[in-house]
Amino acid sequence: MTTVDARQQILAANATAAASLRERFVRAGTLVVNLISSPGSGKTTLLCTLAKHFAGSLRLAAIVGDIATERDADRMRAAGLPAHQIVTGGCCHLDARMVEKALAQAVFGDVDLLFFENVGNLVCPANYDLGEAFKIVLLSTTEGADKPFKYPGIFSKADLAVLTKIDLLPHVPFDLPAVLEEIRTLRPGGRIVQVSSTTGAGIDELARLLAAEVGQCKRTANG
Amino acid sequence: MTTVDARQQILAANATAAASLRERFVRAGTLVVNLISSPGSGKTTLLCTLAKHFAGSLRLAAIVGDIATERDADRMRAAGLPAHQIVTGGCCHLDARMVEKALAQAVFGDVDLLFFENVGNLVCPANYDLGEAFKIVLLSTTEGADKPFKYPGIFSKADLAVLTKIDLLPHVPFDLPAVLEEIRTLRPGGRIVQVSSTTGAGIDELARLLAAEVGQCKRTANG
Repeated sequence: MTTVDARQQILAANATAAASLRERFVRAGTLVVNLISSPGSGKTTLLCTLAKHFAGSLRLAAIVGDIATERDADRMRAAGLPAHQIVTGGCCHLDARMVEKALAQAVFGDVDLLFFENVGNLVCPANYDLGEAFKIVLLSTTEGADKPFKYPGIFSKADLAVLTKIDLLPHVPFDLPAVLEEIRTLRPGGRIVQVSSTTGAGIDELARLLAAEVGQCKRTANG
Repeated sequence: MTTVDARQQILAANATAAASLRERFVRAGTLVVNLISSPGSGKTTLLCTLAKHFAGSLRLAAIVGDIATERDADRMRAAGLPAHQIVTGGCCHLDARMVEKALAQAVFGDVDLLFFENVGNLVCPANYDLGEAFKIVLLSTTEGADKPFKYPGIFSKADLAVLTKIDLLPHVPFDLPAVLEEIRTLRPGGRIVQVSSTTGAGIDELARLLAAEVGQCKRTANG
Protein backbone atom coordinates (compact mmCIF):
# COMPACT_ATOMS: atom_id res chain seq x y z
CA MET A 1 0.00 0.00 0.00
CA THR A 2 1.38 3.44 -0.86
CA THR A 3 1.26 6.44 1.46
CA VAL A 4 -1.40 8.00 -0.77
CA ASP A 5 -3.56 4.86 -0.53
CA ALA A 6 -3.16 4.76 3.25
CA ARG A 7 -4.19 8.41 3.50
CA GLN A 8 -7.22 7.84 1.27
CA GLN A 9 -8.29 4.89 3.40
CA ILE A 10 -7.97 6.97 6.57
CA LEU A 11 -10.03 9.80 5.09
CA ALA A 12 -12.68 7.36 3.77
CA ALA A 13 -13.03 5.73 7.19
CA ASN A 14 -13.30 9.19 8.73
CA ALA A 15 -16.01 10.22 6.26
CA THR A 16 -18.10 7.17 7.18
CA ALA A 17 -17.82 7.86 10.90
CA ALA A 18 -18.53 11.58 10.34
CA ALA A 19 -21.68 10.83 8.33
CA SER A 20 -23.01 8.68 11.15
CA LEU A 21 -22.22 11.41 13.71
CA ARG A 22 -23.94 14.04 11.54
CA GLU A 23 -27.13 11.97 11.31
CA ARG A 24 -27.15 11.61 15.07
CA PHE A 25 -26.65 15.35 15.69
CA VAL A 26 -29.35 16.33 13.17
CA ARG A 27 -31.82 13.90 14.76
CA ALA A 28 -31.03 15.27 18.23
CA GLY A 29 -31.41 18.87 17.07
CA THR A 30 -27.94 19.72 18.35
CA LEU A 31 -26.00 22.34 16.45
CA VAL A 32 -22.41 21.13 16.21
CA VAL A 33 -19.63 23.60 15.48
CA ASN A 34 -16.00 22.71 14.65
CA LEU A 35 -13.52 25.45 15.64
CA ILE A 36 -10.18 25.50 13.82
CA SER A 37 -7.28 27.92 14.22
CA SER A 38 -3.60 28.36 15.03
CA PRO A 39 -2.49 27.74 18.59
CA GLY A 40 -3.22 30.79 20.72
CA SER A 41 -5.73 32.53 18.48
CA GLY A 42 -8.30 32.49 21.29
CA LYS A 43 -10.59 29.47 20.76
CA THR A 44 -10.84 28.50 24.42
CA THR A 45 -11.25 32.08 25.63
CA LEU A 46 -14.00 32.66 23.08
CA LEU A 47 -15.87 29.52 24.16
CA CYS A 48 -15.63 30.59 27.81
CA THR A 49 -17.01 34.00 26.81
CA LEU A 50 -19.88 32.42 24.86
CA ALA A 51 -20.68 30.09 27.77
CA LYS A 52 -21.23 33.12 30.00
CA HIS A 53 -23.27 34.85 27.29
CA PHE A 54 -25.61 31.88 26.80
CA ALA A 55 -25.89 30.91 30.50
CA GLY A 56 -29.57 30.19 31.23
CA SER A 57 -30.67 30.41 27.59
CA LEU A 58 -28.90 27.64 25.63
CA ARG A 59 -27.33 24.40 26.82
CA LEU A 60 -23.71 24.37 25.66
CA ALA A 61 -20.95 21.76 25.86
CA ALA A 62 -17.51 21.33 24.36
CA ILE A 63 -15.17 18.56 23.29
CA VAL A 64 -11.63 19.87 23.07
CA GLY A 65 -8.59 18.28 21.47
CA ASP A 66 -4.98 18.83 22.45
CA ILE A 67 -1.69 17.02 21.98
CA ALA A 68 -1.18 17.07 25.74
CA THR A 69 -2.73 18.36 29.01
CA GLU A 70 -6.35 18.92 30.17
CA ARG A 71 -5.76 22.67 30.39
CA ASP A 72 -8.44 23.80 27.96
CA ALA A 73 -11.19 21.60 29.42
CA ASP A 74 -10.25 22.80 32.91
CA ARG A 75 -10.59 26.43 31.82
CA MET A 76 -13.96 25.70 30.21
CA ARG A 77 -15.34 23.92 33.27
CA ALA A 78 -14.21 26.83 35.44
CA ALA A 79 -16.27 29.09 33.14
CA GLY A 80 -19.34 26.85 33.57
CA LEU A 81 -19.00 25.10 30.22
CA PRO A 82 -19.32 21.29 30.44
CA ALA A 83 -16.22 20.03 28.65
CA HIS A 84 -14.55 16.78 27.70
CA GLN A 85 -10.84 16.75 26.85
CA ILE A 86 -9.43 14.51 24.14
CA VAL A 87 -5.68 14.14 24.60
CA THR A 88 -4.49 13.08 21.15
CA GLY A 89 -1.02 12.07 22.35
CA GLY A 90 0.73 13.61 19.35
CA CYS A 91 -1.98 13.55 16.71
CA CYS A 92 -2.29 16.97 15.10
CA HIS A 93 -6.08 16.99 14.54
CA LEU A 94 -9.33 15.51 15.83
CA ASP A 95 -10.98 12.80 13.75
CA ALA A 96 -14.54 11.45 13.78
CA ARG A 97 -13.64 8.29 15.69
CA MET A 98 -12.04 10.27 18.50
CA VAL A 99 -15.27 12.27 18.71
CA GLU A 100 -17.37 9.06 18.78
CA LYS A 101 -15.32 7.75 21.70
CA ALA A 102 -15.46 11.08 23.52
CA LEU A 103 -19.26 11.21 23.16
CA ALA A 104 -19.49 7.72 24.67
CA GLN A 105 -17.51 8.91 27.71
CA ALA A 106 -18.77 12.47 28.15
CA VAL A 107 -21.79 13.09 30.36
CA PHE A 108 -23.37 16.20 28.88
CA GLY A 109 -27.15 15.46 28.92
CA ASP A 110 -29.15 17.27 26.22
CA VAL A 111 -27.15 19.95 24.44
CA ASP A 112 -28.34 22.70 22.08
CA LEU A 113 -24.91 23.79 20.91
CA LEU A 114 -21.91 21.46 20.96
CA PHE A 115 -18.47 22.81 20.14
CA PHE A 116 -15.49 20.80 18.94
CA GLU A 117 -12.40 22.82 19.70
CA ASN A 118 -9.85 21.26 17.40
CA VAL A 119 -6.10 20.91 18.02
CA GLY A 120 -4.38 24.26 17.41
CA ASN A 121 -3.32 23.87 13.78
CA LEU A 122 -4.52 25.61 10.61
CA VAL A 123 -3.57 22.74 8.32
CA CYS A 124 -4.55 19.16 9.16
CA PRO A 125 -7.87 19.73 11.01
CA ALA A 126 -9.27 21.24 7.79
CA ASN A 127 -9.21 17.79 6.18
CA TYR A 128 -11.17 15.87 8.83
CA ASP A 129 -14.96 16.08 8.86
CA LEU A 130 -16.24 15.59 12.41
CA GLY A 131 -19.92 15.47 11.48
CA GLU A 132 -20.33 19.14 12.34
CA ALA A 133 -22.99 21.37 10.78
CA PHE A 134 -20.84 24.44 10.91
CA LYS A 135 -17.11 25.06 10.57
CA ILE A 136 -15.51 28.17 12.08
CA VAL A 137 -11.97 29.36 11.40
CA LEU A 138 -10.47 31.84 13.86
CA LEU A 139 -7.68 34.25 12.97
CA SER A 140 -6.23 36.64 15.51
CA THR A 141 -5.07 40.12 14.57
CA THR A 142 -1.66 39.26 16.00
CA GLU A 143 -1.04 36.54 13.40
CA GLY A 144 -0.59 38.85 10.44
CA ALA A 145 -2.70 39.73 7.44
CA ASP A 146 -1.10 37.24 5.05
CA LYS A 147 -2.72 34.13 6.52
CA PRO A 148 -5.90 33.46 4.46
CA PHE A 149 -4.09 32.92 1.13
CA LYS A 150 -1.33 31.00 2.94
CA TYR A 151 -3.92 28.58 4.41
CA PRO A 152 -6.56 28.49 1.67
CA GLY A 153 -7.89 25.04 2.64
CA ILE A 154 -9.47 26.05 5.91
CA PHE A 155 -10.48 29.57 4.82
CA SER A 156 -12.34 28.22 1.79
CA LYS A 157 -14.14 25.55 3.83
CA ALA A 158 -15.17 27.59 6.88
CA ASP A 159 -18.79 28.78 7.01
CA LEU A 160 -17.74 31.58 9.32
CA ALA A 161 -14.43 33.36 9.90
CA VAL A 162 -13.99 34.95 13.32
CA LEU A 163 -11.30 37.61 13.59
CA THR A 164 -10.21 37.59 17.24
CA LYS A 165 -8.21 39.97 19.47
CA ILE A 166 -9.63 42.91 17.55
CA ASP A 167 -8.79 45.08 20.60
CA LEU A 168 -5.09 44.67 19.75
CA LEU A 169 -5.45 46.31 16.31
CA PRO A 170 -3.82 49.58 17.49
CA HIS A 171 -0.71 47.66 18.60
CA VAL A 172 -0.05 45.31 15.68
CA PRO A 173 0.50 45.60 11.94
CA PHE A 174 -2.65 44.05 10.48
CA ASP A 175 -4.22 45.12 7.19
CA LEU A 176 -7.87 44.44 8.05
CA PRO A 177 -9.38 45.32 4.63
CA ALA A 178 -6.84 43.03 2.91
CA VAL A 179 -7.75 40.16 5.23
CA LEU A 180 -11.47 40.64 4.69
CA GLU A 181 -10.94 40.65 0.92
CA GLU A 182 -8.83 37.48 0.95
CA ILE A 183 -11.37 35.64 3.10
CA ARG A 184 -14.22 36.73 0.80
CA THR A 185 -12.24 35.59 -2.23
CA LEU A 186 -11.64 32.15 -0.73
CA ARG A 187 -15.19 31.74 0.56
CA PRO A 188 -17.66 33.92 -1.35
CA GLY A 189 -20.76 34.42 0.77
CA GLY A 190 -19.09 33.18 3.93
CA ARG A 191 -19.71 35.25 7.02
CA ILE A 192 -17.08 37.17 8.97
CA VAL A 193 -17.37 38.47 12.54
CA GLN A 194 -14.78 40.59 14.37
CA VAL A 195 -14.58 39.98 18.13
CA SER A 196 -12.63 40.68 21.26
CA SER A 197 -13.14 38.43 24.26
CA THR A 198 -11.30 41.09 26.30
CA THR A 199 -13.61 44.04 25.52
CA GLY A 200 -16.68 42.02 24.52
CA ALA A 201 -16.78 43.65 21.08
CA GLY A 202 -18.63 41.53 18.50
CA ILE A 203 -19.70 38.86 21.01
CA ASP A 204 -23.39 39.79 20.75
CA GLU A 205 -23.23 39.59 16.96
CA LEU A 206 -21.53 36.20 17.05
CA ALA A 207 -23.99 34.91 19.67
CA ARG A 208 -26.99 36.05 17.59
CA LEU A 209 -25.59 34.27 14.56
CA LEU A 210 -25.05 31.04 16.51
CA ALA A 211 -28.49 31.25 18.19
CA ALA A 212 -30.12 31.61 14.75
CA GLU A 213 -28.25 28.49 13.57
CA VAL A 214 -29.40 26.60 16.68
CA GLY A 215 -33.02 27.63 15.91
CA GLN A 216 -32.68 26.42 12.33
CA CYS A 217 -31.20 23.15 13.59
CA LYS A 218 -34.17 22.58 15.96
CA ARG A 219 -36.68 23.28 13.20
CA THR A 220 -34.94 20.74 10.94
CA ALA A 221 -35.02 18.12 13.70
CA ASN A 222 -38.74 18.72 14.38
CA GLY A 223 -39.79 19.23 10.76
CA MET B 1 0.39 -2.37 5.66
CA THR B 2 -1.15 -0.60 8.65
CA THR B 3 -1.21 3.16 9.12
CA VAL B 4 1.39 2.81 11.84
CA ASP B 5 3.69 0.83 9.53
CA ALA B 6 3.24 3.41 6.76
CA ARG B 7 4.11 6.21 9.17
CA GLN B 8 7.18 4.37 10.43
CA GLN B 9 8.37 3.82 6.85
CA ILE B 10 7.92 7.50 6.07
CA LEU B 11 9.89 8.56 9.14
CA ALA B 12 12.63 6.00 8.43
CA ALA B 13 13.01 7.26 4.85
CA ASN B 14 13.11 10.81 6.19
CA ALA B 15 15.82 9.90 8.72
CA THR B 16 18.01 8.47 5.95
CA ALA B 17 17.65 11.57 3.79
CA ALA B 18 18.22 13.84 6.80
CA ALA B 19 21.44 12.02 7.76
CA SER B 20 22.81 12.53 4.27
CA LEU B 21 21.87 16.23 4.35
CA ARG B 22 23.51 16.65 7.77
CA GLU B 23 26.80 15.12 6.53
CA ARG B 24 26.76 17.53 3.60
CA PHE B 25 26.11 20.60 5.78
CA VAL B 26 28.81 19.62 8.29
CA ARG B 27 31.34 19.11 5.49
CA ALA B 28 30.44 22.49 3.99
CA GLY B 29 30.73 24.25 7.36
CA THR B 30 27.20 25.62 6.97
CA LEU B 31 25.17 26.07 10.14
CA VAL B 32 21.65 24.90 9.40
CA VAL B 33 18.78 26.04 11.60
CA ASN B 34 15.21 24.68 11.52
CA LEU B 35 12.60 27.23 12.69
CA ILE B 36 9.29 25.87 13.96
CA SER B 37 6.29 27.75 15.33
CA SER B 38 2.59 28.50 15.01
CA PRO B 39 1.44 30.52 12.02
CA GLY B 40 2.01 34.21 12.65
CA SER B 41 4.50 33.97 15.51
CA GLY B 42 7.02 35.99 13.53
CA LYS B 43 9.43 33.57 11.83
CA THR B 44 9.67 35.46 8.53
CA THR B 45 9.91 38.88 10.20
CA LEU B 46 12.68 37.60 12.48
CA LEU B 47 14.66 36.19 9.53
CA CYS B 48 14.33 39.51 7.68
CA THR B 49 15.59 41.29 10.81
CA LEU B 50 18.55 38.90 11.15
CA ALA B 51 19.37 39.32 7.45
CA LYS B 52 19.78 43.08 7.99
CA HIS B 53 21.79 42.48 11.17
CA PHE B 54 24.25 40.11 9.47
CA ALA B 55 24.51 42.04 6.18
CA GLY B 56 28.19 42.16 5.21
CA SER B 57 29.35 39.80 7.98
CA LEU B 58 27.73 36.40 7.40
CA ARG B 59 26.26 34.86 4.24
CA LEU B 60 22.66 33.88 4.99
CA ALA B 61 20.02 32.07 2.96
CA ALA B 62 16.61 30.58 3.67
CA ILE B 63 14.39 27.77 2.45
CA VAL B 64 10.82 28.42 3.47
CA GLY B 65 7.86 26.03 3.44
CA ASP B 66 4.22 26.99 3.08
CA ILE B 67 1.01 25.25 2.10
CA ALA B 68 0.44 27.91 -0.55
CA THR B 69 1.89 31.18 -1.94
CA GLU B 70 5.45 32.53 -2.33
CA ARG B 71 4.72 35.33 0.13
CA ASP B 72 7.38 34.52 2.68
CA ALA B 73 10.19 34.08 0.15
CA ASP B 74 9.15 37.35 -1.52
CA ARG B 75 9.38 39.17 1.82
CA MET B 76 12.81 37.65 2.51
CA ARG B 77 14.20 38.58 -0.90
CA ALA B 78 12.92 42.13 -0.41
CA ALA B 79 14.92 42.20 2.85
CA GLY B 80 18.07 41.05 1.03
CA LEU B 81 17.87 37.43 2.17
CA PRO B 82 18.35 34.90 -0.66
CA ALA B 83 15.32 32.62 -0.32
CA HIS B 84 13.78 29.58 -1.95
CA GLN B 85 10.09 28.83 -1.43
CA ILE B 86 8.81 25.27 -1.09
CA VAL B 87 5.07 25.20 -1.74
CA THR B 88 3.96 21.98 -0.06
CA GLY B 89 0.52 21.98 -1.66
CA GLY B 90 -1.23 20.88 1.52
CA CYS B 91 1.52 19.09 3.40
CA CYS B 92 1.73 20.41 6.95
CA HIS B 93 5.52 20.17 7.42
CA LEU B 94 8.79 20.14 5.52
CA ASP B 95 10.59 16.83 5.13
CA ALA B 96 14.19 16.03 4.21
CA ARG B 97 13.39 15.08 0.62
CA MET B 98 11.66 18.40 -0.01
CA VAL B 99 14.81 20.08 1.29
CA GLU B 100 17.04 17.94 -0.99
CA LYS B 101 14.99 18.98 -4.03
CA ALA B 102 14.98 22.63 -2.96
CA LEU B 103 18.77 22.62 -2.57
CA ALA B 104 19.11 21.20 -6.09
CA GLN B 105 17.05 24.11 -7.45
CA ALA B 106 18.17 27.01 -5.25
CA VAL B 107 21.13 29.11 -6.33
CA PHE B 108 22.61 30.33 -3.06
CA GLY B 109 26.38 29.96 -3.54
CA ASP B 110 28.36 29.46 -0.32
CA VAL B 111 26.30 30.04 2.78
CA ASP B 112 27.41 30.37 6.42
CA LEU B 113 23.96 30.19 7.97
CA LEU B 114 21.06 28.46 6.25
CA PHE B 115 17.57 28.70 7.74
CA PHE B 116 14.70 26.32 7.12
CA GLU B 117 11.53 28.18 7.94
CA ASN B 118 9.06 25.35 8.45
CA VAL B 119 5.33 25.39 7.69
CA GLY B 120 3.47 27.28 10.46
CA ASN B 121 2.51 24.41 12.74
CA LEU B 122 3.70 23.46 16.24
CA VAL B 123 2.89 19.78 15.85
CA CYS B 124 3.98 17.86 12.75
CA PRO B 125 7.24 19.70 11.88
CA ALA B 126 8.65 18.56 15.25
CA ASN B 127 8.76 14.97 13.97
CA TYR B 128 10.74 15.54 10.77
CA ASP B 129 14.51 15.87 10.98
CA LEU B 130 15.75 18.06 8.11
CA GLY B 131 19.44 17.45 8.75
CA GLU B 132 19.71 20.69 10.72
CA ALA B 133 22.32 21.29 13.45
CA PHE B 134 20.03 23.49 15.47
CA LYS B 135 16.29 23.53 16.09
CA ILE B 136 14.54 26.75 17.17
CA VAL B 137 10.98 26.98 18.43
CA LEU B 138 9.34 30.41 18.41
CA LEU B 139 6.47 31.39 20.68
CA SER B 140 4.89 34.82 20.53
CA THR B 141 3.61 36.59 23.63
CA THR B 142 0.21 36.86 21.95
CA GLU B 143 -0.27 33.07 21.86
CA GLY B 144 -0.76 32.62 25.60
CA ALA B 145 1.37 31.21 28.39
CA ASP B 146 -0.09 27.69 28.30
CA LYS B 147 1.62 26.59 25.11
CA PRO B 148 4.84 24.78 26.15
CA PHE B 149 3.12 21.99 28.09
CA LYS B 150 0.41 21.79 25.42
CA TYR B 151 3.06 21.22 22.72
CA PRO B 152 5.75 19.32 24.64
CA GLY B 153 7.17 17.61 21.54
CA ILE B 154 8.69 20.68 19.96
CA PHE B 155 9.58 22.45 23.22
CA SER B 156 11.52 19.43 24.46
CA LYS B 157 13.40 19.03 21.17
CA ALA B 158 14.30 22.66 20.46
CA ASP B 159 17.87 23.74 21.27
CA LEU B 160 16.68 27.32 21.57
CA ALA B 161 13.30 28.86 22.36
CA VAL B 162 12.75 32.38 21.03
CA LEU B 163 9.95 34.36 22.66
CA THR B 164 8.79 36.85 20.03
CA LYS B 165 6.67 40.04 20.08
CA ILE B 166 8.01 40.84 23.54
CA ASP B 167 7.04 44.50 22.88
CA LEU B 168 3.37 43.46 23.13
CA LEU B 169 3.71 42.24 26.74
CA PRO B 170 1.95 45.32 28.17
CA HIS B 171 -1.10 44.61 25.99
CA VAL B 172 -1.61 40.87 26.40
CA PRO B 173 -2.12 38.43 29.26
CA PHE B 174 1.12 36.42 29.25
CA ASP B 175 2.67 34.92 32.37
CA LEU B 176 6.34 35.17 31.35
CA PRO B 177 7.85 33.45 34.44
CA ALA B 178 5.43 30.52 34.00
CA VAL B 179 6.42 30.15 30.34
CA LEU B 180 10.13 30.25 31.14
CA GLU B 181 9.65 27.59 33.81
CA GLU B 182 7.67 25.28 31.52
CA ILE B 183 10.25 25.58 28.74
CA ARG B 184 13.09 24.85 31.20
CA THR B 185 11.20 21.82 32.51
CA LEU B 186 10.71 20.43 29.00
CA ARG B 187 14.26 21.19 27.88
CA PRO B 188 16.65 21.47 30.80
CA GLY B 189 19.71 23.44 29.71
CA GLY B 190 18.03 24.72 26.56
CA ARG B 191 18.53 28.38 25.84
CA ILE B 192 15.80 31.02 25.75
CA VAL B 193 15.98 34.45 24.13
CA GLN B 194 13.29 37.16 24.25
CA VAL B 195 13.06 39.35 21.16
CA SER B 196 11.03 41.97 19.39
CA SER B 197 11.59 42.50 15.68
CA THR B 198 9.63 45.75 16.05
CA THR B 199 11.82 47.38 18.72
CA GLY B 200 14.99 45.35 18.08
CA ALA B 201 15.07 44.09 21.66
CA GLY B 202 17.03 40.86 22.03
CA ILE B 203 18.16 40.76 18.40
CA ASP B 204 21.83 41.38 19.30
CA GLU B 205 21.73 38.58 21.86
CA LEU B 206 20.17 36.16 19.38
CA ALA B 207 22.63 37.18 16.66
CA ARG B 208 25.61 36.66 18.98
CA LEU B 209 24.33 33.20 19.86
CA LEU B 210 23.89 32.25 16.19
CA ALA B 211 27.28 33.71 15.22
CA ALA B 212 28.95 31.62 17.94
CA GLU B 213 27.22 28.50 16.56
CA VAL B 214 28.41 29.39 13.04
CA GLY B 215 31.98 29.73 14.38
CA GLN B 216 31.75 26.32 16.06
CA CYS B 217 30.39 24.83 12.85
CA LYS B 218 33.33 26.21 10.80
CA ARG B 219 35.85 24.85 13.31
CA THR B 220 34.25 21.39 13.09
CA ALA B 221 34.37 21.50 9.28
CA ASN B 222 38.05 22.52 9.29
CA GLY B 223 39.12 20.38 12.23
